[in-house]
Amino acid sequence: MSVRVTPLLLTLLSGSAALGACQRGSEHDATPTPVAATAEPVDPRTLFEPLPTEIEYDATTVALGNQLYHDPGLSVDGTLSCASCHNIAAGGDDGRATSLGVRDQAGPINAPTVLNARYHLAQFWDGRAEDLHAQAMGPMTNPIEMGATEEHVVAYVQSVPDYVAAFEAAGYEEITFSNVAHAIASFEETLVTPSRFDDYLRGDDGALSEQELAGMHAFVEVGCTGCHQGPAMGGTMFQKMGLVRDYFASRGGELTDADLGRFNHTGEERDRHQFKVPTLRNVELTAPYFHDGSVAELDDAVRIMGEVQLGRDLSEAEVADIVAFLEALTGSAMTLADVTIPPALPAAPSVDQGEEPGAPTAEGASVELK
Amino acid sequence: MSVRVTPLLLTLLSGSAALGACQRGSEHDATPTPVAATAEPVDPRTLFEPLPTEIEYDATTVALGNQLYHDPGLSVDGTLSCASCHNIAAGGDDGRATSLGVRDQAGPINAPTVLNARYHLAQFWDGRAEDLHAQAMGPMTNPIEMGATEEHVVAYVQSVPDYVAAFEAAGYEEITFSNVAHAIASFEETLVTPSRFDDYLRGDDGALSEQELAGMHAFVEVGCTGCHQGPAMGGTMFQKMGLVRDYFASRGGELTDADLGRFNHTGEERDRHQFKVPTLRNVELTAPYFHDGSVAELDDAVRIMGEVQLGRDLSEAEVADIVAFLEALTGSAMTLADVTIPPALPAAPSVDQGEEPGAPTAEGASVELK
Repeated sequence: MSVRVTPLLLTLLSGSAALGACQRGSEHDATPTPVAATAEPVDPRTLFEPLPTEIEYDATTVALGNQLYHDPGLSVDGTLSCASCHNIAAGGDDGRATSLGVRDQAGPINAPTVLNARYHLAQFWDGRAEDLHAQAMGPMTNPIEMGATEEHVVAYVQSVPDYVAAFEAAGYEEITFSNVAHAIASFEETLVTPSRFDDYLRGDDGALSEQELAGMHAFVEVGCTGCHQGPAMGGTMFQKMGLVRDYFASRGGELTDADLGRFNHTGEERDRHQFKVPTLRNVELTAPYFHDGSVAELDDAVRIMGEVQLGRDLSEAEVADIVAFLEALTGSAMTLADVTIPPALPAAPSVDQGEEPGAPTAEGASVELK
Repeated sequence: MSVRVTPLLLTLLSGSAALGACQRGSEHDATPTPVAATAEPVDPRTLFEPLPTEIEYDATTVALGNQLYHDPGLSVDGTLSCASCHNIAAGGDDGRATSLGVRDQAGPINAPTVLNARYHLAQFWDGRAEDLHAQAMGPMTNPIEMGATEEHVVAYVQSVPDYVAAFEAAGYEEITFSNVAHAIASFEETLVTPSRFDDYLRGDDGALSEQELAGMHAFVEVGCTGCHQGPAMGGTMFQKMGLVRDYFASRGGELTDADLGRFNHTGEERDRHQFKVPTLRNVELTAPYFHDGSVAELDDAVRIMGEVQLGRDLSEAEVADIVAFLEALTGSAMTLADVTIPPALPAAPSVDQGEEPGAPTAEGASVELK
């Protein structure tokens, strides 16, 4: 390998020191000890981050967002709310392969769960929304989802006196489409579901059963954590569907537009078949699986991931253990409901909010999740 | 699992349709065919993206950046340039475990290669600079790297008449620290090194030897592509060092600050020991390896990665094949020099630039890389 260095460079640099590259001695090298030939398994407690046990939020805004999230009045024909495809009581999705929009229009892709979505680096499978606020604006005006217009949404909300009062109480200067989405996103930010696994991560050795622990170690050992990491056990990166085996060819069908993944958003060749790694929190509740909703059972999903992403033919015992571990990631929905369905909007006449001891104030609240 | 739905929600929603969740039939489900039991290996040509064979750049700005990049006058004592730690002729780094700054101060971390850095999602091992422009500002004023001040850099550049003319010719309104970094980054953007692997990806079946092809398939099959992907074969994500085996414990030493990785930048627990996945382009030239520079040989690096990241005990044949493949990722430095070391600054007296047929114009240029 040779490189031609033009004399002109040196001309310009005359008067200052010579080029620094390639001239420095090696007497200062302090190379760390190389790793041992056989390294110890990593401690999962160093690998994962527990979900918080407490989060802070603005109670007034979240209460408003909660109402809006569940309100079909935001859709063009009053039939669908955010909760239609992201049912908080059922794992944060709709249990369908791909979603149904207004007038029973079939959506192109599996609805991801809204639970713990705040921990995702971006929203939607293709990451086209940078945060929950941006995401919340999408479905309301998507013609095959809620099918409304921004004007419809704003006019509807303005027509409900309780909403008008609630927007004012939450400190919004006016009712705009963006503010509707902001309130909904504020509500979604509270949807955090700590589980027994988090108890384990915090030091409770008895929180997981023997099989769940075996599954946790298998999950690490076979490499699932390469993609499913962070507090949501996913959502921290985009990844190619079919890294080792060709997922799409072996699925046997034609490619859909949705199969192109993040390519649809960026147009970059490198993003073809890249999808945001889905969270595994509450995965027990979010069948069917994958962006195409093609797999109904969690054990099959684990088996296929092992094969197409990791090139591993997992044993039945490994699959069973990993499934047991994944089921330990299910958060308590009862706890969740306590957090996310607030007692009332401040302006609602039937509740004396703020007067009772311990009631959340309009300025802020902090709720223990577990 | 049960969820308490507060009556107040329903009160507010009276008059509009009932809650949409959980109420929609399943008669429209159109589940795609599940994947076959045993899927075919993925075609690497669908997995990787070749580097471009041609890039466009502003020749005047790049020529200026090239000069600045190689100029030790930017350091506090005139001893170090960008090229000192990122020697383009030697793989884009300095061949040291960790770098040496001015006054022989030892740096904390292995210098990453500058080659193909434009394809990284962020710069530095911990991603603390969002792009090359932000990166270029770091080392000049880092006390243990080039040790200068912004004022020193600007004063030095202003003291060189050729620089003053070159900044004006490149269209900069004034010589500022940020503009110096901008010119350097513009030069770095041109450091793209297509290789025989890119010829293969574009359809030249004979571009890789049998062993290199075997290595490419092993690279995919064992899961290296889970992290090393995109045009730079890396730089698209952050990843935990020691996903399956504990890299740091088995290295046998104390943790350094640098070992904390992206945690140093974000302070988030989830980022502890996370590093930007390094590019594998020109990896043959960039020993020693890893953020700590602890491994001198590429085959050892491959072996350790297989173990600590993928939980695989790679066979000697697999290691040899993968190393052969990685060596096919080395770009042509001769070609590179042709691209990146321009004939002269516009104001340099010894070259009649722009008059010769085919010479790049000041407005823009496009160079075939291969």
